[in-house]
Amino acid sequence: MTHWLWGMDGWQEIDSLPADDRGLQYGDGLFETMRITSLGQIPLLPWHLERLEQGLQALFFPLVTFSQIKAALQQLPAEALRSAAKLTVTRGSSERGYAPAEEVQARFVWRAFDAPEWGRQRFPNGLTVDLSPVVLSSQPRLAGCKHLNRLEQVLIANQFSQGCQEMLACDSDGFVVEGCMSNLFWSQNGQLFTPKLDRSGVNGVVRRWLLSEEAIQQVKVKLDEVIHADAVFMTNCINGIVPVKRLASRTFDPQHAAWQANLALQQRLEAVFC
Amino acid sequence: MTHWLWGMDGWQEIDSLPADDRGLQYGDGLFETMRITSLGQIPLLPWHLERLEQGLQALFFPLVTFSQIKAALQQLPAEALRSAAKLTVTRGSSERGYAPAEEVQARFVWRAFDAPEWGRQRFPNGLTVDLSPVVLSSQPRLAGCKHLNRLEQVLIANQFSQGCQEMLACDSDGFVVEGCMSNLFWSQNGQLFTPKLDRSGVNGVVRRWLLSEEAIQQVKVKLDEVIHADAVFMTNCINGIVPVKRLASRTFDPQHAAWQANLALQQRLEAVFC
Repeated sequence: MTHWLWGMDGWQEIDSLPADDRGLQYGDGLFETMRITSLGQIPLLPWHLERLEQGLQALFFPLVTFSQIKAALQQLPAEALRSAAKLTVTRGSSERGYAPAEEVQARFVWRAFDAPEWGRQRFPNGLTVDLSPVVLSSQPRLAGCKHLNRLEQVLIANQFSQGCQEMLACDSDGFVVEGCMSNLFWSQNGQLFTPKLDRSGVNGVVRRWLLSEEAIQQVKVKLDEVIHADAVFMTNCINGIVPVKRLASRTFDPQHAAWQANLALQQRLEAVFC
Repeated sequence: MTHWLWGMDGWQEIDSLPADDRGLQYGDGLFETMRITSLGQIPLLPWHLERLEQGLQALFFPLVTFSQIKAALQQLPAEALRSAAKLTVTRGSSERGYAPAEEVQARFVWRAFDAPEWGRQRFPNGLTVDLSPVVLSSQPRLAGCKHLNRLEQVLIANQFSQGCQEMLACDSDGFVVEGCMSNLFWSQNGQLFTPKLDRSGVNGVVRRWLLSEEAIQQVKVKLDEVIHADAVFMTNCINGIVPVKRLASRTFDPQHAAWQANLALQQRLEAVFC
């Protein structure tokens, strides 16, 4: 079994969810994908919880839901703590109709899976990244949240070019936002940059961990500026910090000090997981 | 039981769906809500199927899925044909990751429910409609489709003003798009208008039926223009065509010929269901 559902009697193994769940009906919910240590610790849990809390507020979940999630996480059975997990939070069941039920009973689903190796091990020469033809829509009310409305990512993932491991997406003004499944960073003359995520994008866990560790500028720029950076890297919680070898027409130099500096950041991230 | 799932052995009654369904994980699917006659007929089925087919194409479903849906609908058990139904189509199960599985086995869920009376009967004095503070995002690739990414509608529905039955939403350029759960039409000097849905919105079944029956202009306008119309009405498949009594600051006159003309359109729609 790989799925557990939180309920009156704690976490119960399941393989299905009620067909009237609002996660299925409307994508009415949020999720977090986490890396877990061999001791069953989730080192970046505070960052996961921070985004979850902001998402619950953005979706007008009852205040109590966040406390319920934190309490539920305390009681995960040992067998649910494999090397990675996906926590899905939905607004539970409701009749037909967009308005949530008066009494929301949110549903928490825990899916355990085996984390792959860190991205730097799987892609030792760096990532090949192309520009996606899919333009991300702008919705400031949902920007940053990891909600269950992920059709744009499905569309991007469906059009991955052969041999590329990630695709970068821009918004309708041509500003670079993020990859399909990871955040974007680049360095120029020793300064780190990442796109501002005020209108679209997912505010990643590793992204916020980096912002708390380093002086990084959040900017609105077009692809052209990123292409001329000294080094580029992508981040997410499963892959960590992974240098980009080729971005669209530009190939980056692994010997450049900026590339090496990015690897050092990944070492610091891995140290958090030891 | 109210849910049926299509499979190798036809439609089977269910109350739950696999927890790894992509509808739940990413809102990766589409739905149709239909009104059904007492004889078990679905008069507007061609319009439902048209939108479903366009949605399947927009989401890059395998071509065979549409034929499978049509075949499945032929075999619905009699007890599933109540006065209304919601058909949900998801891209089935997959491992973690946005990219669909190589071999997609789409899942079809049929939910039967009792249709309420037509909107004109439930709201004989017309609808009270306010402007939603939620701004709809623009995504031309998904515009018109009734997909499962409906968080914007959930946000709108969550902020309904007291005593109002529908809320109108605009896009980020201030162009009026649609209501939370219905399409918008208005008449001015005998001409009917409806917003163009090329960047957002759901291309409703009654909307397209009306476009096929009447000479209606699809336009991009701001709320101000709609407020100065002779009459306004909202449409969806369950409520039909319902006049608007009050839209934001403007109250409409039920005695106006344009209001009466809209009621005549509803009579024609009801005749299709007899």
